[in-house]
Amino acid sequence: MTILITGGAGFLGQRLARRLLASDGLTGPDGRVTPIDRITLLDVVPASGPDDPRVRVVTGDIADPAVLADAIGPDTASIFHLAAIVSGQAEADFDLGMRINLDASRLLLERCRAVGHRPRVVFTSSVAVYGGALPDPVRDDTALNPQSSYGVQKAMGELLLADFSRKGFVDGRVLQLPTISVRPGRPNKAASSFASGIIREPLNGEAAVCPVPPDTRLWLLSPRRAVECLIRGHELADATLGNRRTVNLPGLSVRVAEMVAALESVGGAEAAARIRWEPDATITRIVGGWPAAWETARAEALGFTGDASFAEIVRAYVEDEC
Amino acid sequence: MTILITGGAGFLGQRLARRLLASDGLTGPDGRVTPIDRITLLDVVPASGPDDPRVRVVTGDIADPAVLADAIGPDTASIFHLAAIVSGQAEADFDLGMRINLDASRLLLERCRAVGHRPRVVFTSSVAVYGGALPDPVRDDTALNPQSSYGVQKAMGELLLADFSRKGFVDGRVLQLPTISVRPGRPNKAASSFASGIIREPLNGEAAVCPVPPDTRLWLLSPRRAVECLIRGHELADATLGNRRTVNLPGLSVRVAEMVAALESVGGAEAAARIRWEPDATITRIVGGWPAAWETARAEALGFTGDASFAEIVRAYVEDEC
Repeated sequence: MTILITGGAGFLGQRLARRLLASDGLTGPDGRVTPIDRITLLDVVPASGPDDPRVRVVTGDIADPAVLADAIGPDTASIFHLAAIVSGQAEADFDLGMRINLDASRLLLERCRAVGHRPRVVFTSSVAVYGGALPDPVRDDTALNPQSSYGVQKAMGELLLADFSRKGFVDGRVLQLPTISVRPGRPNKAASSFASGIIREPLNGEAAVCPVPPDTRLWLLSPRRAVECLIRGHELADATLGNRRTVNLPGLSVRVAEMVAALESVGGAEAAARIRWEPDATITRIVGGWPAAWETARAEALGFTGDASFAEIVRAYVEDEC
Repeated sequence: MTILITGGAGFLGQRLARRLLASDGLTGPDGRVTPIDRITLLDVVPASGPDDPRVRVVTGDIADPAVLADAIGPDTASIFHLAAIVSGQAEADFDLGMRINLDASRLLLERCRAVGHRPRVVFTSSVAVYGGALPDPVRDDTALNPQSSYGVQKAMGELLLADFSRKGFVDGRVLQLPTISVRPGRPNKAASSFASGIIREPLNGEAAVCPVPPDTRLWLLSPRRAVECLIRGHELADATLGNRRTVNLPGLSVRVAEMVAALESVGGAEAAARIRWEPDATITRIVGGWPAAWETARAEALGFTGDASFAEIVRAYVEDEC
């Protein structure tokens, strides 16, 4: 089978590609495991790996129909659509966020409709689709009420994917991802960037700034679990989703103070001491507006598994990246 | 002040224009009543009235940026955005629904952003944004879960309007309209068209087909009340909406059998006998998926008023249209 990963040069796309290439294959619509013949990695910058003859790198603007026509063909069975402009950047540049998070997603779905064989599409959404006065925990039937342009664009993407699925143009599934922590690499423009930075930088011997108060609660998922959830989201049988294409993934509800305690337990007191507390009003407002916990019974019944503890997440980061 | 009504040739646009022209003016952002200098009626067919020197008719495709640039200028203070492809037609012609219900709404908002003075925009949404397993009554925080392309397009319009408002590009308010009954004129392609037809046609001495079972519950609002709600939606102070730009209007929860009883009480047994019961599976599925009642405490606190009884609605129809 041929698979497309958008955002294929990003850390999650790269991890997913490596995980898929190391597997026996993916469970397809017929319920059988099918070997992977090709993985196309589409991104605006060239994907640097993995080094495998089955990998095809496509570099271009995902909002360009010609690029999508190149990336999605009659043989494309499944798409993991991870490409996005992150929250902080979508807030700062409204038009760019609309173009990539909404228009490109729609063009991708239209390209799937045009190829005509109902590709399976796994779309990643976010906690940012929730906001305003929220129940704690957030329920499966809690209204989408995004308070950021990123959240609005992701919510619109969810609606589009549901309708394109209902119409039979694609076989779509939406995963609402918790904040991913610990991301490797460098800080990015997501409002939640610190949720990785306050662990990653101190473990690397560098200083980190925490822009939110220690009692801020976050809803987190490790990169390892995120990749497994993407694969589980793909292999779910169509019929198990009913008329709700969206699954809230099981996260871990953790206070920032607990994250720092886990860092200290793994990296020692000197690691925790590398965090400077400098509250930022904008980031505190955006992140504080996201739900910090939700009901996960449906996700668990559908076979999704979250992390057991934040200390485990930190240890996994050290194993994978340090 | 200058006002634009999109869908200005439609029955609701026409009624709203007549009501506004007969008034002292509209309450503007400053809380003062401002006389109306001009009402632009934009529609794909020429608006036939009202006959008033303040009326300007613009005929064109609302998804054409040049038409919107003509209709919305630096002097446009307020917009009632009523133009839409109705539910049945949006389901039958997916691309047309996307083009008018989503793309044109976005272009309209972008035009407002370009003129730069934050016009007030009243956007009409629908019960069709709800679906799936629903609480009864639907609550203010019930998740949007549309099960039709029309509902998806309206839900996306709601999200866009909220974000364009939050960003300060427009001062938007969304009214989720119940099914309007009794509409004058002829049947249209809305799945709910029968909700007017089974009253209107028998009162006019004509046969009507009811495509849903008599115990089907509907959520209804009369044209008179709908126009008053549009005006109330416009005059609401910005601050009273908080971070929810959407208001569920107060409807009347009525079974089709009760509607027919009201018809009989006004028009006699011979009127009721003109209804043929011919259940249609598609219409029954679409309409049966809409909520038939919701909590209206917020709408009532904001000064919106619904109808007292369906018999009153039928009598008002006879007064206004027969």
